[in-house]
Amino acid sequence: MSEAAAQRKPAELMPLVEALYPICRSITGDGVRRTLALVQDWIPLTLHEVPSGEPAFDWTVPDEWNIREAWIEDETGRRIVDFADSNLHVLNYSVPVDRTVGLAELDEHLYSLPEHPDWIPYRTSYYSEKWGFCLPHRLRQSLTEQRYRVKIDADRRPGSLTYAECLIPGDTEQEILVYTHICHPSLCNDNLSGIAVAAALGQRLMDEAPGRHSYRLVFGPGTIGSIVWLSRNRDRLERIAGGLVIGLLGDEAAHTYKRSRHGHHPVDQAAEYVLAARDPSARIMDFEPYGYDERQFGSPGIGLPVGRLTRSVNGGYPEYHTSADNPGLVSEERLQASLDTVTAILQTLDENRYLVNQQPMCEPQLGRRGLYRATGGADLAARESAMLWLLNQSDGKNSLLDIARRSGVTFEALVSTARELEAAELLRERDQEEQVSS
Amino acid sequence: MSEAAAQRKPAELMPLVEALYPICRSITGDGVRRTLALVQDWIPLTLHEVPSGEPAFDWTVPDEWNIREAWIEDETGRRIVDFADSNLHVLNYSVPVDRTVGLAELDEHLYSLPEHPDWIPYRTSYYSEKWGFCLPHRLRQSLTEQRYRVKIDADRRPGSLTYAECLIPGDTEQEILVYTHICHPSLCNDNLSGIAVAAALGQRLMDEAPGRHSYRLVFGPGTIGSIVWLSRNRDRLERIAGGLVIGLLGDEAAHTYKRSRHGHHPVDQAAEYVLAARDPSARIMDFEPYGYDERQFGSPGIGLPVGRLTRSVNGGYPEYHTSADNPGLVSEERLQASLDTVTAILQTLDENRYLVNQQPMCEPQLGRRGLYRATGGADLAARESAMLWLLNQSDGKNSLLDIARRSGVTFEALVSTARELEAAELLRERDQEEQVSS
Amino acid sequence: MSEAAAQRKPAELMPLVEALYPICRSITGDGVRRTLALVQDWIPLTLHEVPSGEPAFDWTVPDEWNIREAWIEDETGRRIVDFADSNLHVLNYSVPVDRTVGLAELDEHLYSLPEHPDWIPYRTSYYSEKWGFCLPHRLRQSLTEQRYRVKIDADRRPGSLTYAECLIPGDTEQEILVYTHICHPSLCNDNLSGIAVAAALGQRLMDEAPGRHSYRLVFGPGTIGSIVWLSRNRDRLERIAGGLVIGLLGDEAAHTYKRSRHGHHPVDQAAEYVLAARDPSARIMDFEPYGYDERQFGSPGIGLPVGRLTRSVNGGYPEYHTSADNPGLVSEERLQASLDTVTAILQTLDENRYLVNQQPMCEPQLGRRGLYRATGGADLAARESAMLWLLNQSDGKNSLLDIARRSGVTFEALVSTARELEAAELLRERDQEEQVSS
Repeated sequence: MSEAAAQRKPAELMPLVEALYPICRSITGDGVRRTLALVQDWIPLTLHEVPSGEPAFDWTVPDEWNIREAWIEDETGRRIVDFADSNLHVLNYSVPVDRTVGLAELDEHLYSLPEHPDWIPYRTSYYSEKWGFCLPHRLRQSLTEQRYRVKIDADRRPGSLTYAECLIPGDTEQEILVYTHICHPSLCNDNLSGIAVAAALGQRLMDEAPGRHSYRLVFGPGTIGSIVWLSRNRDRLERIAGGLVIGLLGDEAAHTYKRSRHGHHPVDQAAEYVLAARDPSARIMDFEPYGYDERQFGSPGIGLPVGRLTRSVNGGYPEYHTSADNPGLVSEERLQASLDTVTAILQTLDENRYLVNQQPMCEPQLGRRGLYRATGGADLAARESAMLWLLNQSDGKNSLLDIARRSGVTFEALVSTARELEAAELLRERDQEEQVSS
Repeated sequence: MSEAAAQRKPAELMPLVEALYPICRSITGDGVRRTLALVQDWIPLTLHEVPSGEPAFDWTVPDEWNIREAWIEDETGRRIVDFADSNLHVLNYSVPVDRTVGLAELDEHLYSLPEHPDWIPYRTSYYSEKWGFCLPHRLRQSLTEQRYRVKIDADRRPGSLTYAECLIPGDTEQEILVYTHICHPSLCNDNLSGIAVAAALGQRLMDEAPGRHSYRLVFGPGTIGSIVWLSRNRDRLERIAGGLVIGLLGDEAAHTYKRSRHGHHPVDQAAEYVLAARDPSARIMDFEPYGYDERQFGSPGIGLPVGRLTRSVNGGYPEYHTSADNPGLVSEERLQASLDTVTAILQTLDENRYLVNQQPMCEPQLGRRGLYRATGGADLAARESAMLWLLNQSDGKNSLLDIARRSGVTFEALVSTARELEAAELLRERDQEEQVSS
Repeated sequence: MSEAAAQRKPAELMPLVEALYPICRSITGDGVRRTLALVQDWIPLTLHEVPSGEPAFDWTVPDEWNIREAWIEDETGRRIVDFADSNLHVLNYSVPVDRTVGLAELDEHLYSLPEHPDWIPYRTSYYSEKWGFCLPHRLRQSLTEQRYRVKIDADRRPGSLTYAECLIPGDTEQEILVYTHICHPSLCNDNLSGIAVAAALGQRLMDEAPGRHSYRLVFGPGTIGSIVWLSRNRDRLERIAGGLVIGLLGDEAAHTYKRSRHGHHPVDQAAEYVLAARDPSARIMDFEPYGYDERQFGSPGIGLPVGRLTRSVNGGYPEYHTSADNPGLVSEERLQASLDTVTAILQTLDENRYLVNQQPMCEPQLGRRGLYRATGGADLAARESAMLWLLNQSDGKNSLLDIARRSGVTFEALVSTARELEAAELLRERDQEEQVSS
């Protein structure tokens, strides 16, 4: 971290979460654009508009959805349900409607949660043409037999899908990818916590010295967003050295790392290493084909090593996808802790290297190079230990994370000692060819 | 199963066991032929007669043995031991004898079990020319010093070794093999339970729709039978996709599956999967070179993936190879349960496939194909789960059993959902070439 | 073992330990030569003198060190510390000095152990030019402010480094290597126990019938000795089939086997097999790049499968590298037990072979070869079990140790039964080419 950055007080994330909260987002539309405009106050973004109808592998970019108002009025003209009160009230991606209907027909278009009668559920209908309203179950039960006027003033028409990228250049064109979904309306842990952490992460990485890898942060809608991104970048995927899908980083649960489909890739090793040190109650789970955009990165034809970091998992807390997932569910302290954890995982992945001992025939003579007991101090033994392990294991097949796991020496000690041994020309980084053959 | 088959009452196996019980079988001879004649009431058999002297790898088909009578008379003419009472009384494969001997000489030809003084042991002498009698130890101890006439009216002379096959054709010439030994005389769990289950299995498989594989049931004597069969079929062994040796399926013990020498072949996966679901107290044991004909299938030059299903193992119950292994040791209920278990293992092996996702770049859009939440119902989540796992894991390297183990989705759900995805052209079966390269 | 050898009373090792104890050894010099002269009373040695300045990989053979006297006198002429009392008193490899110094300056050259105030520590300065004295902390604390005369009458000048080899020829030129370090002065467990066990081991191996491998015992200084040996033998390293570094074999601890860097090499299997049978409280530890000369054998460019057998490990007992590591710390009984254990490991490695079944298609007919139940006796079942396992597993990929581990049959039974099966032409040893391709 630069000195200026170190002195800067870390930005608070809750104000961003609260500013984003009222916006009605969906997988397309102006809500997404307004969201990205607020993120641009934190980091520079390249915005992409992908026209409706553009194919993306097996999918097609849908029509754009925008909504102005939506409500249900009873016979007295009272607005029983109003989108102006909560954007969750409308079935996300509803087609427009303006009709008067009886209770029975209305009820076919209502969504509520009997087990949480005061919460509004979040429901979507992206790929079938429906209209509908979401409301507290208690309110639904109070509806009486009468005529209701239902109005949804919305468009589903050709437009574009919006996503944004922030590229933080590093020493190479190899990239570390971070993806967060931005398609949920007034839901806070899922997905505003992820958006806020990603924005702050970008700011922090820009403040630091460049990494070995470039970092690419992608803000896009769930599922269709990552599919579109992968489709448009299919010729450049070999640059992706690894990555994380992030989200659900504000609730009270400990972190959960979901392994990439690969399972033992350096990104998995980095995440497991960092979590073991920082969050002992963290949970590690194997890849499975549910969840967020890691499904697409981990599809068999893509096969990118992208894991996922959340606190609770999708569906794993009662407030998930309801109006109770509000700003009270997330805290500044937990967002900051998650930001630190994400940063540590990515930087560990960035600093993980395969080195090759240049004096592999017996141990090199460290003493005449001033490397062996040249200085005293408390960390002497750790440094010597790091040197011996690095020299012994650096045959081009073991990464620094491999050596950390085998030796018990900290990754940090290995990174800094490796630099000393490189300066002494005892280690050098593995060539690309060596990488391929191993 | 066809409708006719489903309506037919399952045949009872104990009558077959009891009909087979009195017959004096050995590794050759008319007892084997009479046994196979009774099995032919259940299923069509192709009978093979292999001439004595024909080589089979390191072995030679032995002379044929047939016996008419055998007894020991004391000086008063009383028959102390008589083959007519139990065919276990004669050392199986005894050479003929007709002499009068003293007690000391007689005793050298007697076999009994001090630890079970009322049981007759089962002993054989296939490959050395001996005569002898087996009797209860209590009876042996009552013999007094006098002259005894011993008579065994038997032949050991050139003839043939008999084995039988039942082939149930499937969609391909790839075969699933079932072997059961038929060389034991009046012993019930070992080996009449295996013969009866194999007969009923053949009947059941013929009633069902053809499988992907053909099924070949082989009824032959232990050791020499499988060696002869392998020797005569050596050019066709590559057709064997896997198989089971079955026997000892009537006693009270839970099932024991003995892995093939390969250890992790689909037949092993299938057996372990089925037993985990059907018989939680079942025992899985590694391959070892004792036991029944799996020894030959698992010899290093043969290397066929053939496991073994029994209840107790050879030597694993007190009545093993004694006159106490009688019809009272086996039960209709246990034979039926074993028949069901064998059928389930074989059909799981038959239905296990390697599929390849035809839309591997990201998830395919299930919704527009009517596959995603197209219908409701209790098994909706299971079906969607099966679809996502199948699409994600079907890269040609994971079989349906692999996916079942990894996902926790049942094999049955994967099989039926795979058919839906094949109909939608999202999955297809792996080519032979892909099979070879993986 | 020859009959003469078997009748000979095993030589006692403590007299050798006690004869070696007073000698002042270092990594070079006459102390090493006098040590090797005593070992030559046990076994024939080839002595090597390697000139100072000769390069050895990244190292250079140092100047030779010899010392005549060393002491500290106070103003009254009293010798406070005298090398004549203990050769540990002088910093090993001290440069010569003859000066009068004050207490403050003297103290910078003193080494003591506050936690063991009556013991003299062992310290060295091979590769930097220092002088110094080691003394009990209690004595150091009693020193008063006055002038002290310090004298070390020693040479560090071009000469040579001495090491010795004992080669015991076997049936092939493939070698099993044993290395023990010989550079420690009056320290008994580390390193006289190793020298004595190696000397007795050589005597014992010469008494035995030749092994399949030749044995090479190397006596050299720690670190620089193995580096020099490896450098001078770099073109012959492919002959080394495996080996052991031995030392610290007299203290009260159970044995510790440290795996080779390979981790699962036959030498590791042999050591683990022997220790499981002989020393149930033995500890097995993974390779790590600290310790003794296994560091050099296990460097990434050398990669020889050399494990290490000790009782306590380096630094693992309070008396380590102090004057308390005296003859009282080791016992004849423990030295003999370690000698037996080392011998057993090496002979197990020597006798471990890869065999190939010559009748791999089904089981061979053991009966007609007189191998099956040809004789009775208590070990009948074990012998048959050994035969069946050997025949089944000898496909050229499983060694006798592999089969021992899988089957539970003892290695000894497999070795002797394998000889019977070779005599019957049912097994033969794997060719070199088969070895390479597996």
